[in-house]
Amino acid sequence: MSLVTVGTVAFDSIETPKAKVDRVIGGACTYISWSASYFTDDIKLVSIVGEDFPQEELNALSSRGVDLAGLEIVEGGKSFYWSGRYHDNMNSRDTLVTELNVLADFNPVLPESYKGGDFLMLGNLTPEIQLQVIEQMETKPKLVVMDTMNFWMDVAWDSLLKTIEKVDVITINDEEARQLSGEHSLVKAAEKIHTLGPKYVVIKKGEHGALLFGEGRIFSAPALPLAEVYDPTGAGDTFAGGFIGYLSGQGEVSFDSLKKAIIYGSAMASFCVEEFSIGKLKKLNQEMINERVKKFVEISRVDL
Amino acid sequence: MSLVTVGTVAFDSIETPKAKVDRVIGGACTYISWSASYFTDDIKLVSIVGEDFPQEELNALSSRGVDLAGLEIVEGGKSFYWSGRYHDNMNSRDTLVTELNVLADFNPVLPESYKGGDFLMLGNLTPEIQLQVIEQMETKPKLVVMDTMNFWMDVAWDSLLKTIEKVDVITINDEEARQLSGEHSLVKAAEKIHTLGPKYVVIKKGEHGALLFGEGRIFSAPALPLAEVYDPTGAGDTFAGGFIGYLSGQGEVSFDSLKKAIIYGSAMASFCVEEFSIGKLKKLNQEMINERVKKFVEISRVDL
Repeated sequence: MSLVTVGTVAFDSIETPKAKVDRVIGGACTYISWSASYFTDDIKLVSIVGEDFPQEELNALSSRGVDLAGLEIVEGGKSFYWSGRYHDNMNSRDTLVTELNVLADFNPVLPESYKGGDFLMLGNLTPEIQLQVIEQMETKPKLVVMDTMNFWMDVAWDSLLKTIEKVDVITINDEEARQLSGEHSLVKAAEKIHTLGPKYVVIKKGEHGALLFGEGRIFSAPALPLAEVYDPTGAGDTFAGGFIGYLSGQGEVSFDSLKKAIIYGSAMASFCVEEFSIGKLKKLNQEMINERVKKFVEISRVDL
Repeated sequence: MSLVTVGTVAFDSIETPKAKVDRVIGGACTYISWSASYFTDDIKLVSIVGEDFPQEELNALSSRGVDLAGLEIVEGGKSFYWSGRYHDNMNSRDTLVTELNVLADFNPVLPESYKGGDFLMLGNLTPEIQLQVIEQMETKPKLVVMDTMNFWMDVAWDSLLKTIEKVDVITINDEEARQLSGEHSLVKAAEKIHTLGPKYVVIKKGEHGALLFGEGRIFSAPALPLAEVYDPTGAGDTFAGGFIGYLSGQGEVSFDSLKKAIIYGSAMASFCVEEFSIGKLKKLNQEMINERVKKFVEISRVDL
């Protein structure tokens, strides 16, 4: 089924304790779309870039089945740019530079062909823009998934709540779930967030896996313990892409299909951190993904 | 099969954001023995208390099948006492008072009947005492499990390493695994710890579950997301007690039996935090434990 993806397409400069790269390909929508492209070939991307964004990167996305009719290319404009430095533990990072550039005036206009999309993935972006996209959909998608972060809780609380009200699934990390709900217990946090709108709450816990809450049930997904995390940038977006990509490919929405989607999303994220940028995501194939997914199932399986 | 348990039997005063108790029953060996008593009725306790320790608490342990021949009761002495206050998130705490009392001169002497014990659980205690107990065993136990903490890494590094060398399983939390190994990645940390002695490494991650490393395999056990944690004191000891208790009850040592033991240990710990002290641990029965264990299996089960 068709999948509409919204988010940034951008450049990143990243410094980890072991290496450094300058102006590599980044952006939530880039990671989401690459990740989802292993599960569905009917992806409709909504984003904005400047004239500086490499045509070959757009061609690479097209060749993966990503429709770029919804990508605005601003003549003479510069693409969104983010630069960050990871701390020794790779769990926290400092933002060094954020240049909104063309993103500052982004008013997404959905092509007609997008408006009947079956699945909608709202990547991390201002909640106003996420809402604008929801409102342009002519038929209600089978599932609207929203990724967001603490930054929007700090600077755009009201519009964040308006957007959350319209989505079926929200994906956030544990600290963000606590901030959004005012509850420390993740069980209570998820209960509170359900009342804000989302039927399903996905709490991403990084190296500790993820939790899915919904329909009165809980699913705890493991993370794959890794010997090395090369670069965590984009892991959350890649998770979201694998999650919604899997669901779009299957076409079914239920607690059980969401459980599986979380495993696929987690597997994709575990690849993402193995290289800078979308390096690893470009090199995957179905066999590699299946093998990785099998590992996730194996490490958490226990029969009593 | 018989299980020898070593550790403190003590009094605790505990303050959480919601409540406060004074001089309740505590101690690693108390939690371990209560927890293990639901899986085996052949427990041989090694510890020390003062004359102030209530006889009815000792009777309660005896009635659970806990042999107290190895419990030294010091005439006129005072039992070990610990007092602590939990922070709002219940994940961290401050120690307010530590009175070693009779523990300061503890030189465990194992009764003859203990020296052929099948399983040995070394609860958190000075590594010197843990080692003394290992050395008094006349036949090598089927499995020696050691619980320890960062404190001993700070003040007793050399004797800690000497003890670790002699054990089959070590249970520590993630930060302690990092401190002990000097490795941030838990995969690398476990690899390093294997080289120190333990064939199996159990990493306790509190609300994030636990990891088991051994035989080149990894098992990721979920935690049960809880709406309320009333008092986390003793949760790690209770985990250890359920873990070794299950193994002693089954009598089999393999990666697969250790996986199951981790689930049983986690289930017992999830009960422990529901009340102060050993309050909840005294009220359990097999049906409650089986139901709880089923929940652990259910929340992590996924079939692709």
